[in-house]
Amino acid sequence: MRGLDAFFSPRTVAVVGASRDPAKIGHLVLKYLLESDARVYPVNPSADEILGRPCYPDLASIPEEVDLAVLAVPAATTVQMVRQCVDKGVRAIIAQASGFGETGEEGRRLEQEIRSILAAAPPDRRPRLLGPNTLGVYVPRRRLDTTFTLRERSPRPGPGDIAFISQSGATAVCIMEAAATLGVGLSAFVGIGNKLDVDENELLDYFAQDPCTRAIALYLESFRDGRGFLERCRRITPHKPVVVLKTGRSATGARAAALHTGSLAGSDRVVEGALRQVGAFRAYDEEELVDLARALGHGRPLAGKRVAVLTTAGGLGVIATDLLESRDRGAGLELAPISEEGKARLRSVLVPFASVHNPIDLTANSSNGHYAASLEVLEAEPEVDAILCVMQFQSPFVDDGLAQIIIDWFHRGPKPMVVVTIGGELSQRGLRQVVQAGVPAYPSLWRAVRALAALYQRGQYLRRLHPLPPAADAAEPPEGRAAT
Amino acid sequence: MRGLDAFFSPRTVAVVGASRDPAKIGHLVLKYLLESDARVYPVNPSADEILGRPCYPDLASIPEEVDLAVLAVPAATTVQMVRQCVDKGVRAIIAQASGFGETGEEGRRLEQEIRSILAAAPPDRRPRLLGPNTLGVYVPRRRLDTTFTLRERSPRPGPGDIAFISQSGATAVCIMEAAATLGVGLSAFVGIGNKLDVDENELLDYFAQDPCTRAIALYLESFRDGRGFLERCRRITPHKPVVVLKTGRSATGARAAALHTGSLAGSDRVVEGALRQVGAFRAYDEEELVDLARALGHGRPLAGKRVAVLTTAGGLGVIATDLLESRDRGAGLELAPISEEGKARLRSVLVPFASVHNPIDLTANSSNGHYAASLEVLEAEPEVDAILCVMQFQSPFVDDGLAQIIIDWFHRGPKPMVVVTIGGELSQRGLRQVVQAGVPAYPSLWRAVRALAALYQRGQYLRRLHPLPPAADAAEPPEGRAAT
Repeated sequence: MRGLDAFFSPRTVAVVGASRDPAKIGHLVLKYLLESDARVYPVNPSADEILGRPCYPDLASIPEEVDLAVLAVPAATTVQMVRQCVDKGVRAIIAQASGFGETGEEGRRLEQEIRSILAAAPPDRRPRLLGPNTLGVYVPRRRLDTTFTLRERSPRPGPGDIAFISQSGATAVCIMEAAATLGVGLSAFVGIGNKLDVDENELLDYFAQDPCTRAIALYLESFRDGRGFLERCRRITPHKPVVVLKTGRSATGARAAALHTGSLAGSDRVVEGALRQVGAFRAYDEEELVDLARALGHGRPLAGKRVAVLTTAGGLGVIATDLLESRDRGAGLELAPISEEGKARLRSVLVPFASVHNPIDLTANSSNGHYAASLEVLEAEPEVDAILCVMQFQSPFVDDGLAQIIIDWFHRGPKPMVVVTIGGELSQRGLRQVVQAGVPAYPSLWRAVRALAALYQRGQYLRRLHPLPPAADAAEPPEGRAAT
Repeated sequence: MRGLDAFFSPRTVAVVGASRDPAKIGHLVLKYLLESDARVYPVNPSADEILGRPCYPDLASIPEEVDLAVLAVPAATTVQMVRQCVDKGVRAIIAQASGFGETGEEGRRLEQEIRSILAAAPPDRRPRLLGPNTLGVYVPRRRLDTTFTLRERSPRPGPGDIAFISQSGATAVCIMEAAATLGVGLSAFVGIGNKLDVDENELLDYFAQDPCTRAIALYLESFRDGRGFLERCRRITPHKPVVVLKTGRSATGARAAALHTGSLAGSDRVVEGALRQVGAFRAYDEEELVDLARALGHGRPLAGKRVAVLTTAGGLGVIATDLLESRDRGAGLELAPISEEGKARLRSVLVPFASVHNPIDLTANSSNGHYAASLEVLEAEPEVDAILCVMQFQSPFVDDGLAQIIIDWFHRGPKPMVVVTIGGELSQRGLRQVVQAGVPAYPSLWRAVRALAALYQRGQYLRRLHPLPPAADAAEPPEGRAAT
């Protein structure tokens, strides 16, 4: 076990401050961790057993090595417990308590004490520490969950492939709830809190290597080491997309961040350009953060800017066209021309009053079959770089099977595809289904178009990094010329 | 009964083309209309009764006056039926069939025929006609619904105070479903289709006068008479907000609109500035259309740009601050300063580690009571022009009652308020509850901030139109001076 693995795949976990009281954090943390695949040890000197598990008076009495210790105790006690962790040889510590640097002088002194304890430990027995002031980690595929919000109130996302690093715990909880509702999954969540030891940079490195992570989303109020962050992005973004919601864009925002997590935001204008240069995406709000991470993590980058729109409501096609093509309040992309052959094929399968011009309008009489046939045509169109599929469930000839048709074409077809659905319960159900299957799908046209724009931008970035060799027919001069 | 009333509050309705076949439009239209408060007459020469109602072979045999005739018959038959309507003295006709001007030459000829029939009718017996190529109308408070999408698949919005005029039927259905899911209500929906007779301008006039309508939202692909539209907006917007989603911003969008509804979009750049000048709001996508109509219809215009943010997640407050204050990707508003007295009052009611600086952070330990007490303080703050209330349900001390507290303060407090909630099922339920109570509330920070920006813009507009008299103490010269 090396690096930060002890945080994300511990074999053994100690819950220090485990409690019998269901209202206590130390109870919730233990309860949820008992569902994980790790061996879990409650630590509490004044209890014999909690939730059916024998309780240990201290870390030292745990009969095996401890990979991860979750400290669910107040700030002052946390300091003592870090000392115990060092003595026990614990590999990783999650310090959950608040009341540290974010609250003022006394808190900063406590943090300094922890730093000294860690520094004094022999390097080969020096635990890594997450926090303080953090919910810790949540790794859905292992059911490893140290966050202590009630699951009944705060549903968690299922397993997925987006890593989410957040400097704010409560905010991350809200974002994860919204993501879960939409069907978005995570490879891991990690709250960095006051980043006394482990920071966003090290976590970037970690998730860059993590085979379960396809995109990295960060909520940051400050950079521990901005230059280091950018260097990492430059190294990572060619392989894995990085999306950053970095606050402090406004002066008051920067001050608010300083009050919230005690962090200095740094100059924002530098951030903006620098992130772009190293191929990272900047998100401007909590919704865009997850929207872009999904688009970039699951979608294919666009090779060109020509998009085919498939819809059953002409108006939605027209609005989408404006959003795709406009430079102001739009994506600056283009509508793809459909070949005459493609139009003929579409005409042969669609209802007579359907429009085979892009945006392609299946009309309100669309069926599952019309969608499937149209996608087949569009996937083969030479001048289509991407498909915006408007998945609507209003037609009586469309049923729940539509979502699966779209999922299949998304995975099978060569073209990048983004899906949008506007409507009520049926739409929301369909949306959840396709999102869970890894399709970048959204409940509004603009969010879908913005996803396409990001995939186009990423395509351009990757192309600049790795210019394609000239096409074969152009690379080899025609025989006649070669002879001259 | 005058003007367009026969469309929206008919006493008698004939369904021409009423059908026994549940798959037919003429069946659905009749079925849904039977729930309305109008007397409904099925017309079909080859049936004795449909859905338990005696059926009439033609309009002439209906034993009383017909206010509204819904023509659920094909295009060619529609022409003949319009003739029957004139003979019967029907006041209003909804011509649902497609296959008219939007499909080409033959369709345009049929439209011309209808125009001639209407023109030939004596002015006092000339029916008004909506469509052709339209779903017709939906007036929730009367359960008057001529739209023919299956309710099981397309849930309708409940009664409300937003009028929605749309040039595209299928698109309007999608938008209404999404609105219904969020808890948004309508005073009326009307699909103008090919606008052979009744157009958006006349409907603007109608809803301007309609006491049940507080905001008018339009989806338009073309203007019948752009100058007339703008003149109406200039007259109406001082009293009632108007939000327009007008497509054709891009060249291809304009062409797509022409193919879709056969309309010529006109130059878009002119539209942009002109709408702003007459106090109308332009929306750029289907979500913004409804978002802004709700904000402007239900929210109070801002007198100034200083916003207080109330949150339970510090990070959400920081993101909101950036969105509020930034000019680029933000609203260009300001965070309000909180008075020392206000801060002291907040300190006395909140938990010790709460932040009483704006953005005010109740922390994850917030309770219903903290929200109520903080709103009371903020409502009294002299330098707060509006409140952005982040309504979160994650805290164990918050329950469903929170929504009602916010609803009460929204209606009671003098300050304009916009609400946002980020999260899962509890948030969505709370959101629906406050939206149904007429609170402009949104599931993302950006959508909420955009609503505040619109309310600020509207405040500025109304202030320019009606400059406030100088404050009383300034208006009356002090006695000493008056004497000089």
